[in-house]
Amino acid sequence: MSGPTVRGLGGPGSRAARGQEVVRRSNRSAVLSHVHVAGPTSRAELTSKLALNRSTIGDLTAELVTMGLVTEEPPEEQPARSARRTGRPSLVVRPRPDVTALAVALEVDRITVALVGLGGVVLRRTSRRHRPGQHDVRHVVDAVTRQSEELLEPGGYTRCVGVGVSIPGVVRRTDALIRFAPNLGWVDAPFPELLSKELGMSVVADNDATLGVAAEHLRGAAVGVEDVAYVRSDIGIGGGVISGGKLLHGAQGGSGEVGHLLVDSRGLECRCGATGCWETKVGVDRLLTSAGRLPGGGSHAVEEVLRAAEAGDERCAEAVDEAAYWTGVGLANVVTAFDPRVIVVAGVLDQVWRARPDVVHDGIGHASRIALLEEVDVRSAGLGEDSPLIGAAELALAPLLADPVGEDPA
Amino acid sequence: MSGPTVRGLGGPGSRAARGQEVVRRSNRSAVLSHVHVAGPTSRAELTSKLALNRSTIGDLTAELVTMGLVTEEPPEEQPARSARRTGRPSLVVRPRPDVTALAVALEVDRITVALVGLGGVVLRRTSRRHRPGQHDVRHVVDAVTRQSEELLEPGGYTRCVGVGVSIPGVVRRTDALIRFAPNLGWVDAPFPELLSKELGMSVVADNDATLGVAAEHLRGAAVGVEDVAYVRSDIGIGGGVISGGKLLHGAQGGSGEVGHLLVDSRGLECRCGATGCWETKVGVDRLLTSAGRLPGGGSHAVEEVLRAAEAGDERCAEAVDEAAYWTGVGLANVVTAFDPRVIVVAGVLDQVWRARPDVVHDGIGHASRIALLEEVDVRSAGLGEDSPLIGAAELALAPLLADPVGEDPA
Repeated sequence: MSGPTVRGLGGPGSRAARGQEVVRRSNRSAVLSHVHVAGPTSRAELTSKLALNRSTIGDLTAELVTMGLVTEEPPEEQPARSARRTGRPSLVVRPRPDVTALAVALEVDRITVALVGLGGVVLRRTSRRHRPGQHDVRHVVDAVTRQSEELLEPGGYTRCVGVGVSIPGVVRRTDALIRFAPNLGWVDAPFPELLSKELGMSVVADNDATLGVAAEHLRGAAVGVEDVAYVRSDIGIGGGVISGGKLLHGAQGGSGEVGHLLVDSRGLECRCGATGCWETKVGVDRLLTSAGRLPGGGSHAVEEVLRAAEAGDERCAEAVDEAAYWTGVGLANVVTAFDPRVIVVAGVLDQVWRARPDVVHDGIGHASRIALLEEVDVRSAGLGEDSPLIGAAELALAPLLADPVGEDPA
Repeated sequence: MSGPTVRGLGGPGSRAARGQEVVRRSNRSAVLSHVHVAGPTSRAELTSKLALNRSTIGDLTAELVTMGLVTEEPPEEQPARSARRTGRPSLVVRPRPDVTALAVALEVDRITVALVGLGGVVLRRTSRRHRPGQHDVRHVVDAVTRQSEELLEPGGYTRCVGVGVSIPGVVRRTDALIRFAPNLGWVDAPFPELLSKELGMSVVADNDATLGVAAEHLRGAAVGVEDVAYVRSDIGIGGGVISGGKLLHGAQGGSGEVGHLLVDSRGLECRCGATGCWETKVGVDRLLTSAGRLPGGGSHAVEEVLRAAEAGDERCAEAVDEAAYWTGVGLANVVTAFDPRVIVVAGVLDQVWRARPDVVHDGIGHASRIALLEEVDVRSAGLGEDSPLIGAAELALAPLLADPVGEDPA
């Protein structure tokens, strides 16, 4: 409530010149960000969407072409429309997908690395399973380095601006130290720093579900929604929240760790050390063992259990109903704490919710009266399993999008 | 990430004129907001704090004087300093406390109404107990109206800009409908609308703890803290959160309802209908009955139990330890969900925390490993029991502070 947001005009000439450069940088960022998110856009549309002059847009896009960040081409002929038109058609501005970031998604049983281009296109990807006991930080750094080099080597891609990493744990924002990743057994692991040395590129990292909610809000099931929670479960459960349009981080990067909210005081001890956390109740291995299967099967094994339940296998049906009930109880915590308009679910939570939406809603209602005020809108992730991966790419691309020239112009 | 935040300069003259008026309005708001929060401030300090020209500040304060919102006076003589000074001393700008808002704090057993002046000064207040069974909406409207008229009648105050109400429940932001206030037994109560008709003034309302955290952030124990949770307990427990400097509301106004997060699956049924909510474990009546006292005694009775525990009364000591443990378990939920740097506690939570900080911290550690990453800084509310009341006044004053002239200049 204190402090002005707009200052008086005037002052020496150099300040005005700096002001113009600030405006220009902001406009450059707006154009590149627009085509990055919305895809190919004509100059005419950019002029109207960004409320800038035609000549300003022309200058900006020409500059971005020179910098190798976008291309400009005449639109494909559309005979019906072109007949009605007079004058030259407006050039279409496309983000160049050969401007890329490396995105890394660390999961408990899998490492995925992808080369993602401007526009959010996954150009190449590699995904490797790794077993429990292979979570030594050094070992993971080596594995990610190998997978990254496979993607980069044969490329001929003009530019990789950096690396973004999705982590199933609490990441400190100031220095990207991994404070706590219970399912990897990591405490204060300097993973991004080590990876950066290995790859010789800048590495940024954030919590998987925080990246997931950002990606779903940008390109997935929650575009335009101001209050959204994203929850995903494979082995653990992670949560990320956008509230009032703003991504929540918390003081230590631990906001939205809803997998460690209590759902059952009589429950099992969690890997985090507490008792009865949500993630002790819903997860791949928990569902598989409840259904009488061996753990470690991944989402395909979960699908098999869901099909067996559907086909009348009683033990599987009970296991699915139980998972659906606890999915609801945990979602009730999410609603009580954050009051989202939309909850985006991914992983086992999504599979279970699609199989038994009625049981999930019973669980929500049992545990939260607040959730009953309006129907909570539960949706499957629009980007499927890739939300954290895409979010990691966006994190790595963010500095380029914010300032396409950068301090050291190309 | 899409859309520009700064637009190209230029355009027709009317646009430039409009721009100047926007800047002027913003500066006017900055000056009034500054003295409202920081208290009397010299023109020289305003010039430096707000980074505006001396003459601009002079124009703005003169305008605010004309509008009856501030006064300007020479500073009181400070002989030691004035000897060193040359030229006229800078005038001191003070907010006028006779520009007021009515603040109403509805609690389960009490209604407080206060006349709060610019600068955040409580000028007059009236507080009345009311018993369970007197929560009929009409009855409460009448009681608040009577108390308000008592405060306004003998005043001679120049200006009351509106009414702000603090509600122990979920308030919809769009129309201030009280969606759910379980401890008052209200569902979809149009309390603000009814009160507005009765008083003939605009009435705004929000959740008590949301107003509480805003007030603590502005004037209390969390000034300058970007990630803060405020929790208070009397009969129920309310929570409000500022994350990354931004007040959280949620889609329905229900964000931060941490009193209804689960702490004990074997617990009692809550007034909200769920089982084992935090507020079934910690509260005035719960503590009094555990200590073998009659319920309904309020915070003085709680103090008496704390003193008895201190003096060696075993039953009281057990009751306090139990409350402290569950205070910790509930705070662990707050940390797990929101990851605040500071938790501001008020009411019974504050009393219990001050009596047994060690037991509270044990409870936090038992229930959350994330909370152990850094010591969570628990602080007593800087505004004591008044945070929601002061927050309600700020809510009512906010339109004046944002635009001191308003659409219809005085």
